[in-house]
Amino acid sequence: MPITLKELADFCDAQIEGGNPSALIYSAADITSAQVGQVTQLTNSRYSGYIKESKACACFIANDFSVDAVPDTMALLRCSDPEMAFIKAVSLLHPAKTYGQYIAPQAVLEANVSVANNVYIGAFAVIGENVSIGEHSVILAGAYIGNNVKIGKHCQIYPYAVIYDDVVIGDNVVIHSGAIIGADGFGYKFRNHVHVKVPQVGNVVIADNVEIGANTCIDRGALGSTTIGTGSKIDNLVQVGHNNKVGKNVIMCGLTGVSGSCTIGDYAILAGSSGIADHVTIGQGAVVMARSGVAGDVAAGTQVFGSPAKDKRTAYKEQVAISKLPELLKKVKLLEEKILALEKQEKNDD
Amino acid sequence: MPITLKELADFCDAQIEGGNPSALIYSAADITSAQVGQVTQLTNSRYSGYIKESKACACFIANDFSVDAVPDTMALLRCSDPEMAFIKAVSLLHPAKTYGQYIAPQAVLEANVSVANNVYIGAFAVIGENVSIGEHSVILAGAYIGNNVKIGKHCQIYPYAVIYDDVVIGDNVVIHSGAIIGADGFGYKFRNHVHVKVPQVGNVVIADNVEIGANTCIDRGALGSTTIGTGSKIDNLVQVGHNNKVGKNVIMCGLTGVSGSCTIGDYAILAGSSGIADHVTIGQGAVVMARSGVAGDVAAGTQVFGSPAKDKRTAYKEQVAISKLPELLKKVKLLEEKILALEKQEKNDD
Amino acid sequence: MPITLKELADFCDAQIEGGNPSALIYSAADITSAQVGQVTQLTNSRYSGYIKESKACACFIANDFSVDAVPDTMALLRCSDPEMAFIKAVSLLHPAKTYGQYIAPQAVLEANVSVANNVYIGAFAVIGENVSIGEHSVILAGAYIGNNVKIGKHCQIYPYAVIYDDVVIGDNVVIHSGAIIGADGFGYKFRNHVHVKVPQVGNVVIADNVEIGANTCIDRGALGSTTIGTGSKIDNLVQVGHNNKVGKNVIMCGLTGVSGSCTIGDYAILAGSSGIADHVTIGQGAVVMARSGVAGDVAAGTQVFGSPAKDKRTAYKEQVAISKLPELLKKVKLLEEKILALEKQEKNDD
Repeated sequence: MPITLKELADFCDAQIEGGNPSALIYSAADITSAQVGQVTQLTNSRYSGYIKESKACACFIANDFSVDAVPDTMALLRCSDPEMAFIKAVSLLHPAKTYGQYIAPQAVLEANVSVANNVYIGAFAVIGENVSIGEHSVILAGAYIGNNVKIGKHCQIYPYAVIYDDVVIGDNVVIHSGAIIGADGFGYKFRNHVHVKVPQVGNVVIADNVEIGANTCIDRGALGSTTIGTGSKIDNLVQVGHNNKVGKNVIMCGLTGVSGSCTIGDYAILAGSSGIADHVTIGQGAVVMARSGVAGDVAAGTQVFGSPAKDKRTAYKEQVAISKLPELLKKVKLLEEKILALEKQEKNDD
Repeated sequence: MPITLKELADFCDAQIEGGNPSALIYSAADITSAQVGQVTQLTNSRYSGYIKESKACACFIANDFSVDAVPDTMALLRCSDPEMAFIKAVSLLHPAKTYGQYIAPQAVLEANVSVANNVYIGAFAVIGENVSIGEHSVILAGAYIGNNVKIGKHCQIYPYAVIYDDVVIGDNVVIHSGAIIGADGFGYKFRNHVHVKVPQVGNVVIADNVEIGANTCIDRGALGSTTIGTGSKIDNLVQVGHNNKVGKNVIMCGLTGVSGSCTIGDYAILAGSSGIADHVTIGQGAVVMARSGVAGDVAAGTQVFGSPAKDKRTAYKEQVAISKLPELLKKVKLLEEKILALEKQEKNDD
Repeated sequence: MPITLKELADFCDAQIEGGNPSALIYSAADITSAQVGQVTQLTNSRYSGYIKESKACACFIANDFSVDAVPDTMALLRCSDPEMAFIKAVSLLHPAKTYGQYIAPQAVLEANVSVANNVYIGAFAVIGENVSIGEHSVILAGAYIGNNVKIGKHCQIYPYAVIYDDVVIGDNVVIHSGAIIGADGFGYKFRNHVHVKVPQVGNVVIADNVEIGANTCIDRGALGSTTIGTGSKIDNLVQVGHNNKVGKNVIMCGLTGVSGSCTIGDYAILAGSSGIADHVTIGQGAVVMARSGVAGDVAAGTQVFGSPAKDKRTAYKEQVAISKLPELLKKVKLLEEKILALEKQEKNDD
């Protein structure tokens, strides 16, 4: 359902500059590809060049962002935060699929399952004993919910996500397909030439507003809980080992691994393919840069890089120094020769 | 069903040298383990030593490959390309399982699904609304196909692969179990101390002849498409983020991660556990070596290594230099002492 | 069901020191969090400080471990191996869920499936043709078992684990959710500008007492088998490529990748996010440290670190040297100046 430019501007609290207020907007697109009937955004001057040729009907742009050569067919939508306005516009024009109250006949619900109002349970979903599911939550086809699991309100569990027994999930949590929450932690004691399994009898507790990516694994605690704090966002293919305490609003990017019994402070960022050894504390707001391997604690607010990870500035200095190293080897060889020459001369002088 | 050596040679366009043309061949094996009734190949002189003791009935070998001490019981199968001839032989002797037209009674097909002739749909597969599936495609047990997905001809989707809504898949595409195609990209804006999700309303478009490994994730575009070009092959546990444009015949090995909005040129190779930062362009035919981390563009045809990745020759020189670094530290210490001595002497001389 | 301290001590072969033998023990917990009614352990003097304030009723502790200030309410449970005694206690107090003989009506069993006594098969499990399942094995909901698969006794296959055709699994094997066993190896030959697939017609053979983590992938052999030896333990999100021969009691931690045709010796340890290039041999008991990338053979009993991986001591020396490198550059610059000065002076002297 298209809406008029005027309606869109009002919905997003933007001021129209130029263009045609009654033009119809059908969808949103990037500035590099937006066509007639689409709205876009310009928030980075790197992309300013695209605006001249753009066929987009409208473009969200900051109040103070100066831009030349806006086509006559394009309205600028001036606002204080064009990124957030554009998110509103995208959500309006491309609404998420909604699910009503439904329990598929092919779903299996074990004994004593408590399902609130307006819950959707898809085909082949398996809901274990003593599970409770809060209102407006959506359990898509084939999701597996183990025994004694609690799921809050407005959650969305995608197909073939697996929630092992005893996991506790807050409200507004999204868990993508293939994510495995609550599998056994990786703990063994080596005795008599074999690895003896340490029972993994804890659980996983996920707070509100968490999103967990596809094929990510979060292991249950050996004893006690592995916890994920409110608002944390975890990308695909991330490994979170047992008994980690992940704070609030933490970001973990794809292919990152956190061993076990770590504390990840609020607002910390673990960039892609980074890794954290066990029993490490990452301070609040710290950034572990991509592909870094952290073996010791990282102070709050600092940024670390490399493997083993060091303070970013130190690591960068070392990287620069390494790039000069082949040259340095030659220099030192030359110095050795010169000193030898000087020593000889000095000897002759004596 | 065994076939005679003669039949195998004819099928693979090879010339028989020695052996018994009516010997029966049952299966194929590596040269290190092939037994009576088996055919093998020898394409690398490193393995020439195995031929003397081999019990294999036949061995594919290049026309000009010289080899001693071939057992009387072994026929050489001379041909111009023994690797390709051997692939033909393996395919003949170990035929892939075939699937006829079938829709399992336990499968769920939502409204308006278009299924071409000779399509197989296994038990517990879920096929969403408005899906079309081309002829001879095989949807194995438990595969999940979201709404509006298009699947071409002769595709094979393995159990518990998940295709989110709106994904477009070409012909002859293979998607292994646990692969998640079209989950949300990892995009957030940080406002008022929380991470606000950027709606991920694009899709994934996969061209013909692509193979996608087990548990690999390919995220949908935020807006627009994440694309995988014709003939590209992606290994297991690979992360392809949103809005990447992957070219034709690209190779991505296991545990590799590509952040987002990257362009990967045709014929590029991303070796195992490598990683690409966002908005990077990898040129045509470029090679990112194993475990390398790429933060900037890589020129076509070049090879890069390390993290941060550099031109392979530069990186190797630096590696050699690093191995000399502990020694260099000692040398410089010695030079310092010598210079101190020279300075003293010079002072005395004055 | 709680038990008395006396019963617990007897069960675990420990001697009670202090406390109340008839106190009831309900569960186990870490020393940092144990409460009334719980048993804990103290095996690391780093945690000795916690005992003073602990409310735990009992604490396993080594016979010779000295500790002060034990609360009156806490019994020490003296034994020779408190870690193993604690494992026994945890297993007793938190018994694993047991499964009786059952085949869910929603499971699909193809032709010629052989199911031993006391096997459990959950809802939506798919069991292919000619499969055999040994007694007391548990196939949980939605697990997919391909054709011709053999599963031994006392195995546990978690939801949505996928076992491709022809895989052979020993006794007491645990396979977690999302693990994909036997998908095609990643093998292609490049001809006429395309990647031609090498048929992957081998299988995977898993010996007894192996545990395989969530979302881990173990590819089938191209020809012959990929093998995992007795007692080996593989963490989550690990990639084991085709034709690898993994020995006995090997440990592979999360996000590790082993390319293909490697030999991993008994008792080797591949730490987190490590990677092994193809055709490499890792010797018995060798340790590949976290995030290391191994391109060549590693001798038995050695430890390697880095990427490219080197002997640990060499790698550490180089790391120390690198940290001194920025300083070294300055030193050499100073030396150059001093030598220039000396050379000038020498010239003047002449």
